[in-house]
This record gives sequence, structure tokens and C-alpha cells, in this order.
Amino acid sequence: MLDIKSFIADRVTLMESSEIREILELTEGKNVISLAGGLPDPKYFPTEELAEISSYIIKEYGSRALQYSVTRGLREFRKEIVDFMEKTGTPGERPYNIIVTSGSQQALNLLAQILVNPGDLVIVEKPTYLAAINVFKAVGASFDGIPIDDEGMRTDILEEKLKQLKAERKRVKVVYTVPTAQNPSGVSMSNERRAHLLELAEEYDFLIIEDDPYSHFMFENVEFKRLRSMDKYRVIYTSTFSKILAPGLRLGWVAAHPDIIDALEIAKQNADLHTPTFNQLIATEAIRRGIVYEHIPKVREAYKRKRDVMLQALEEYMDNMAKWTKPVGGLFIFVYLDESIDTKEMLPEALSAGVAYVPGSAFYIDGSGRNTMRLNFSYPSEEEIKVAIERLADVVREHVSVQR
Amino acid sequence: MLDIKSFIADRVTLMESSEIREILELTEGKNVISLAGGLPDPKYFPTEELAEISSYIIKEYGSRALQYSVTRGLREFRKEIVDFMEKTGTPGERPYNIIVTSGSQQALNLLAQILVNPGDLVIVEKPTYLAAINVFKAVGASFDGIPIDDEGMRTDILEEKLKQLKAERKRVKVVYTVPTAQNPSGVSMSNERRAHLLELAEEYDFLIIEDDPYSHFMFENVEFKRLRSMDKYRVIYTSTFSKILAPGLRLGWVAAHPDIIDALEIAKQNADLHTPTFNQLIATEAIRRGIVYEHIPKVREAYKRKRDVMLQALEEYMDNMAKWTKPVGGLFIFVYLDESIDTKEMLPEALSAGVAYVPGSAFYIDGSGRNTMRLNFSYPSEEEIKVAIERLADVVREHVSVQR
Repeated sequence: MLDIKSFIADRVTLMESSEIREILELTEGKNVISLAGGLPDPKYFPTEELAEISSYIIKEYGSRALQYSVTRGLREFRKEIVDFMEKTGTPGERPYNIIVTSGSQQALNLLAQILVNPGDLVIVEKPTYLAAINVFKAVGASFDGIPIDDEGMRTDILEEKLKQLKAERKRVKVVYTVPTAQNPSGVSMSNERRAHLLELAEEYDFLIIEDDPYSHFMFENVEFKRLRSMDKYRVIYTSTFSKILAPGLRLGWVAAHPDIIDALEIAKQNADLHTPTFNQLIATEAIRRGIVYEHIPKVREAYKRKRDVMLQALEEYMDNMAKWTKPVGGLFIFVYLDESIDTKEMLPEALSAGVAYVPGSAFYIDGSGRNTMRLNFSYPSEEEIKVAIERLADVVREHVSVQR
Repeated sequence: MLDIKSFIADRVTLMESSEIREILELTEGKNVISLAGGLPDPKYFPTEELAEISSYIIKEYGSRALQYSVTRGLREFRKEIVDFMEKTGTPGERPYNIIVTSGSQQALNLLAQILVNPGDLVIVEKPTYLAAINVFKAVGASFDGIPIDDEGMRTDILEEKLKQLKAERKRVKVVYTVPTAQNPSGVSMSNERRAHLLELAEEYDFLIIEDDPYSHFMFENVEFKRLRSMDKYRVIYTSTFSKILAPGLRLGWVAAHPDIIDALEIAKQNADLHTPTFNQLIATEAIRRGIVYEHIPKVREAYKRKRDVMLQALEEYMDNMAKWTKPVGGLFIFVYLDESIDTKEMLPEALSAGVAYVPGSAFYIDGSGRNTMRLNFSYPSEEEIKVAIERLADVVREHVSVQR
């Protein structure tokens, strides 16, 4: 009897299937309002403009739009990315600092591949972005986690940790952070802590990955400096067109020191040769025509309204039962319940009650955070958000009373 | 002083940058006719049809075309792939046997990731497809090579090798083959040998990767059965839309046992979440409208003419100086020069003379084949092919006389 599973390599077990996607599958087709995803609201996709641009691109560029192209990404696209970064607060890039990726998931995957030898120590926030944990795990990274508060990563605790590790002769290679409107917590790192983090990078000789999908969606008049704008050597910056244009095109990029870009190019050639030529040209044109710049404030306003609706609903229904972050940007609110509640165990009940969320422990490298959950407000409608939080509150109330 | 290179992980050195792409870069912008690539002739891309389909897709599917989608690939696309396989000689597939990939490069990369533990033995043809060597190397595979002749892989030699390895208690996990119109050699495995290979897989318990980008471009009235059509358990099939539609869309797929597809799905989620939704819908529509079916015979005729021009030019200019394969399909002719000639050393002279090729040793896992080279006839025009072979013959003649 042929046992196909016996042929599967060990590393597959390291690449844990994302719990979020599994939950999304569970909710499919059922009368469940999902606060579990991280999808942009499709109502705001510039569909008409992109329909027009798509046929324009093939007519204008002809067969070139459909042919193979270079691994690093089209030069005109990389130039537009540099220009976009310049206009949005990260000046000083050059096309040779940029590599185009198939979404920021690929950016993280390739960065893990080129930076991490098995056993290398990677420091992340606690909680941190689930997909980042998975890509680092898959290449055999060891982890350490630094707690966050309302001003983001506790760099004072990081400093203690670095001292201690140095005493043990252990090297930290990479610190991974989502400094602005973090996924999952929604908090942003203060500018003071950003400066401190960069000082520590210099002192303890590590690189920083700045994962920045959300910084164009800040709802208050706050100004956070991108780490990349403060240090072009130690900071590897990655972002995506998934939120500022459309995720179905699968376009992301990395801005980093050319030595990093060279290594990424080798890994990307091995991974998929290059990102679709056609899609790169579509995004190039969308930037040139100003569509991206017009799109961002529209989406920002919409997400701000939705955040406000969710915060209000939380206050109305969950007050006294939970605490939550008040994000100044992004797509998520992070909720802390009573320590006695396990949100993973509670999930089936929530699904039965018609609401989905992501149990927060998925975002903690040490499996802690069992009493937390991540709520998304970008995808559901304002009305759905209200109903979902009301349903969720009923489930939580049940648990609070059981535990007490 | 910050030394960024010291941060780069060891595995990057395993993912050798493809020599082909480096050569292509060398020839860029110069008066060099490149026989080095493997690009389809863009003259035949269905550009007008794809321009129309692109805007149709966004109008028809709306925001769904631009939103995130499932890792495995859109169900309607997988159904069209099943239908396409059915109509072109590989019946019996189901959508759950299929995963969509970002080109067949990604298919090979993911297969290497899910099948090969460091040290696992992979058997390939000698010569074999360069990118396959690289993806297997990157995950730490060990290699053995089996020579080919005019009927493809010498399965008698494979059998000897398997016996010997079994005696040494070594397990072969995977045999990788491009059985039809092979890259780089252009030869096709006879149906007898295909049957023999499958018997050996059963007897010695290994899986077969059938890499099949070229089987739609057979120039003679020959009928090769796809390995996948003969065995749905041990054969993992991969193909691409790069040659039957357009490479710039980056679309490929794998058809395999569901356990393999499940593992690939985990690896793909880690790699890039999913292949662009928009591109999948474009290809779905291109199959539905019959564009792929109309496209194939046109391209086949064009490549047949080009092959004939190259074979004729080789006879005219290279007779007595070289031997070469007479491929019944595909994009390449493989040339064997006098044993004393090193085609890698000869390459700079060839470039100076205005012609580029890929030194054959790149395709041999043991670095042999130093006297061979791969010539592509799909991309250059018929006129360019003639001129290029004439130039190449001059360079070779020089070497033959020097060596004697």
C-alpha cells in the first residue's frame, strides 16, 4: 500500500497552516460575521480605473506586458515605488534599493530565507504578525518576544534582553517589527522608542525588518517616522499594494541595502522567477495616474468610521468585561478578556452565535495571550460590526459568569 | 563598519543564481543574437484577446477579481485546468488534485520544499533542467544522474542504479524528469521507457515528478503518453501557461495525489498566500473562449519552422564539427562538440562574435558535459537563427583548429 504521506519532508510540519485561514474556511457560506480576516473592504477597490488600465497596458506595452521579465522587478515600477515612498515620507531610496515581490507574504518568506540560519535568534513583538512567525519558524529560527504597550515595543525590556543575551554570548540577528498600526494589536511605536530601537541595533549589531502595510491608514493627526527613513543600513523595509490598491494583484516590495536586495534576488529567482509583468505595469500606471494617491484617503476615512463604530460597540456591549486597544490606525482592535477565559476554547461558541475572531494566542510565539483576540474592522460593514460585537458580548458574558 | 553580507544565511549560496539569466543580462542591449534563453516568441501572444479579457474580467467579476482568494487556486480555474488536461490527453483529474502556482518555477520550488529532507536522494536526467537542479540543491538534496539517449532517460541504467542503491540500503525518494521534448536536450522518452520507469517506481517505491511545459509543441506525428495519465499515485505532474498562453502572467499548476496537494498548499501559503486572483480569472476565460486551444497549433507551426531552420543551418555550417539532437518538439536543440572544447570558456568569444548560448555543463549535476551547449530556437527569428548559427560555427571552427 502506497503511503504518500511518508514522502512529505519534515519542514512542512514547521510551516503551520495559518489558523486565520482555517477559521475563514469554517465560516464560509454560514451566517457568521467574520471579524477574523484582514481583508480590505472591496467596496473601495478602484475597479473601473483598473479595468481601463488593464486593457490600456496590453495595448500600450503590447507583448512586453505578457513576456518574462527581470527577477528584481521592472525598472519603471521600481522607480514609481521610489517616487511613492518619497512622496509619503520615506525619501532617499533608489531603484537598486528595491525588489518587487509577490505580495508582502513573499517578502517576509524571502527575508526569512536569506537572513536566518537554523537556530538563529529572531526577536519579535508579543503579540506579532502570525505569518511572520510562520515564515521564520519554517527556516528554523529561534524566537524571543518583547511585550508591547500603548507605545509599541517595550524597547527598555528589549535592551535588558540584549544585555542578557550578550552576557550569554548569544547573537540577535534580526528584530522584526510592525511599528505602525501593528497587526494584531493596532498600536504604534512612539518616535522615542523608534530612536531607541535604532540605537540598540547599532550597539548590538542586528538588522531590523520594518513591516509596514498599514501606515497609510492613520486616523488621527499623528506623525510616526518610518524606521527606514531614519536608517538606510540596518532597516529592511517591506510594504504591499494589497491595502493601498488591491490584494488580488499580489504586489509587494522590499527597500533595503543593495547587499540584501542581491540576496533576495537570488532567492526570488529560485521561488518564482519574477512577479507577473502585467501586474507590475498595472500598478505602475495606477501610481502614475494618481489612483493610489486618491484611493488612500477614501479608504482611510472609511476605516476610521468603522473603527469608531467598533470602539463604540465595544463600549456599549463589552464594558466591564474586557479591555481593548484604541488604535490610531490600521485594520485591527486587540481585546484582552479576563485571564480565566481561553478564546480558542470559546471560538466554537462564538461561531455558533454568528461571529468569528482570531484567538490571540496565535500571535504569541510562546503560546501566551490565551485570553486575547483580534478583531478586524476593515472588511465588515458598519452594521455588521455592531451586530457582531453584540453577539460576541453575549458569548463572553456567558463565559465570565461561568468562570466566576 | 557594518558588514551586511555577514548577515546573509548560508542557504543563499546553495541557490545558485541561474547562469542562463546572467548570460541574458550580459547580452542585453548589445548586438548579440541570443540562443541562450527559453522565451516564447512574443509575436504569437494573443495580445488583443487578452486586452479585451482583462477589462472584461474586472467588469464581470468586479471586486472579486481584485480581492484575496484561496491558496489552492480559484475553483473555476482548477476546473478549467482539469478540462484542458482531459481534452489534451490526461483525463481523470479532479479539481482537488490541482493546485495553482505562480509559474512552474514555483511548482518545482514548492515540490522540492515538501518532498526533500536534507540528504534525500533525487535522481535526475543527465542533462536536466537547470532550475530543477537549483531548487533541489537549495533544500539540501543529494543527486544522482541518469544519462539520456534519443529515447530519453536510460531506464536500464536507472534500474542498475536502483539495485545498487538498494544494496547499500539507500532510498531514492524522487525521480525528476522532463519526459517530453526535454529541456535542454529536446529528446522525448519512448513509451516503452515510460512504462519501465513506472514499474521501477512501484518496485523501488519512489515518486516521479513529470515536468511537462513542452508537450503541446510536438512537431511530428508522435504520440507520447503522459506519465500522469498512466499512474495517478506515483506521478506528480506540473505544467505552465507560460508557453501555451503567456509567461508574464506567471501561471502554472501541479496535478497530484491530494496528500501532495495538501502539503503544497501549506508551503504555498507560506510562500505567497496565493497566485494573483486577477491572472487566474484571465486564464480561466482564455481557456473558456478557446483562445488557448487556438493559440497552441499556431505556435507549434512557428516553432516547427524555426527548428527546421536551425537544423538546416547546423547542417550547413557545423557539419563535421559537432553532433546535435533532432528534437521532435519543444524549444531547444542540444549540441555536442569535440571533447576537447569547453563551451563555458568559449562563451566570451561567442558573445564577441555576436551569439549567445548556454554552456551545457550547467545542466549536468556532476559538472560534466563541458563540451555541450543548449540552443534555443523559439525566440529568435528565422533570419536571426541562420546568422547566429553561422557566427557560432566560426567560433567553433577556430577552437577545433586550435585544439588540433
